[in-house]
Amino acid sequence: MTIPTDPDTGEFHRSANHFDARITADGRDGWPVEPGRYRLVVSRACPWASRGLIVRRLLGLEQALPVAVADPIQDEKSWRFTLDPGDRDPVLGIKYLAEAYFAAEPDYDGGISVPAVVDVPSGKLVTNDYPQITLDLSTEWTAHHREGAPELYPERLRDEIDEVNRGVHADVNAAVYEAGFAAKQAAYDDAYRRLFAKLDELSARLEKQRFLVGDTITEADIRLFTTLVRFDPVYHGHFKCNREKVAEMPVLWAYARDLYQTPGFGDTVDFDHIKRHYYQVHEQVNPTRIVPAGPDLSGWASPHGRESLGGRPFGDGTPPGPPPTAEEIDPR
Amino acid sequence: MTIPTDPDTGEFHRSANHFDARITADGRDGWPVEPGRYRLVVSRACPWASRGLIVRRLLGLEQALPVAVADPIQDEKSWRFTLDPGDRDPVLGIKYLAEAYFAAEPDYDGGISVPAVVDVPSGKLVTNDYPQITLDLSTEWTAHHREGAPELYPERLRDEIDEVNRGVHADVNAAVYEAGFAAKQAAYDDAYRRLFAKLDELSARLEKQRFLVGDTITEADIRLFTTLVRFDPVYHGHFKCNREKVAEMPVLWAYARDLYQTPGFGDTVDFDHIKRHYYQVHEQVNPTRIVPAGPDLSGWASPHGRESLGGRPFGDGTPPGPPPTAEEIDPR
Repeated sequence: MTIPTDPDTGEFHRSANHFDARITADGRDGWPVEPGRYRLVVSRACPWASRGLIVRRLLGLEQALPVAVADPIQDEKSWRFTLDPGDRDPVLGIKYLAEAYFAAEPDYDGGISVPAVVDVPSGKLVTNDYPQITLDLSTEWTAHHREGAPELYPERLRDEIDEVNRGVHADVNAAVYEAGFAAKQAAYDDAYRRLFAKLDELSARLEKQRFLVGDTITEADIRLFTTLVRFDPVYHGHFKCNREKVAEMPVLWAYARDLYQTPGFGDTVDFDHIKRHYYQVHEQVNPTRIVPAGPDLSGWASPHGRESLGGRPFGDGTPPGPPPTAEEIDPR
Repeated sequence: MTIPTDPDTGEFHRSANHFDARITADGRDGWPVEPGRYRLVVSRACPWASRGLIVRRLLGLEQALPVAVADPIQDEKSWRFTLDPGDRDPVLGIKYLAEAYFAAEPDYDGGISVPAVVDVPSGKLVTNDYPQITLDLSTEWTAHHREGAPELYPERLRDEIDEVNRGVHADVNAAVYEAGFAAKQAAYDDAYRRLFAKLDELSARLEKQRFLVGDTITEADIRLFTTLVRFDPVYHGHFKCNREKVAEMPVLWAYARDLYQTPGFGDTVDFDHIKRHYYQVHEQVNPTRIVPAGPDLSGWASPHGRESLGGRPFGDGTPPGPPPTAEEIDPR
């Protein structure tokens, strides 16, 4: 995989999402919510796609929006369904996610990214607009939420959630990539500085409150979690985000474990996919493609003690049951 | 720098030291101990060379055996004196350490390594045999040791020190390189497994005794220290030795800090040289040559509590005074 950086500054910037149609209850973009009609294509390695996996689990949308899991190792044609029999997604019948992109736009020449929502009848990509996908699962798919589903994007907290998300996006979710893909020292140094300043700020915020906004789990927690869970296995070493490990930052470490141990979070995390993806795909960063054996991950199951801060993880709702058998992660 | 690995197994093996003459009190190899006659050429980045820096400090040989410090970044002609005025070592008058190798053997075509001891009058390399150099400083240079110099290789403990050193060499000092330079996953996995099994064993050994052999600092501690002090800044991330950081292994972390805070150890350590060397020289491992800003190193100064185990760091001797002004490390 070639990682594009600015030739002058050595900075990496994520490209915009080209397909931004929305699947809504009223179908105003031509894509109405309809259970079983769409397929959520993810990689379990990818933090942006993993948001969708968590939200879908918390809201109980597993049947309404089935999932296709791509191989964590892309080839030159990008994400592929080599984990499935015959190397094809059994529902879409395609070998590469790119085929759904081209079905939607034959001349498309941009990047092929996950998460991607595909319309099953036509085989066309509907959206790869990851910041909107999870919000729409919360607000447009309500008719299909499970009983006891939490409110992850409650109306009265949206301004605050949006504000927290902006900061977490710029200085955490994206900053780890900007550090890891930087081609020049100054670009790396800037991303590293912003990242750890933000982690310190979040750590202070979370010292006396259990969740980022309000007293329940919201979209804001999900977006921070997907970066924190990848931090020690990947970003710390591979992306040189190494002031400390999350396991050395007591507040964030307890916060991350609290979420990890909550049904719908840890049961979506595949550390094997995560490690193999980053270390084997980014040859510009890791030319040998060797995957580190560490870190010791047993600490994720250790008691976090965050219950003493109060908070009601699911608000007036309840935790989800276990994941469907077909979606259980192989313990390795 | 090209890192040679076995094309079949992907394993890295350190090449043998070609120049193994010894400088002895009786001069039997033609190189008698003589204060001011020789120059110890080191890089402060290099763990093998840093053993010599520590032993020299502990024994008070700074005047008898002056030191030349090479730039931590080698170029295609290897170690160079670009930290000195005019890019030349002021005593040897050479720009590259290789010149001393060729003065000794014009047809030499092996590697150029530090530590290296050079005969100043002839400009010829005498030895690059690092395992012997420090032992000879302890046993052959006794006439020039400072008052209160410790016995680092006491006769009655030599068998035990040699045995500990063999294990530490194979499974710690060399194993981190074998993990980091491995070209195939199996070669990496083997080195990683040996490394952490040995660190666990050393950790158990050091739980109830302050030093590795006997109750004083010996050559065995010096050889383990030079790897431990580089572990978190370099080997953990760059060489993928990432089961834990040393800072996460309580016994080894306290042991390493105890030594670091002992005069003659920490005052030889230049973390800037260490980090820049590994991350900028090994382009096969780190193609961007970006140097991580972390880790936070402030913990090295924190209390270690190992005094409670007893032990007499310098035995019947005393700690050395501060290093000569010219050898002080720039705090960065």
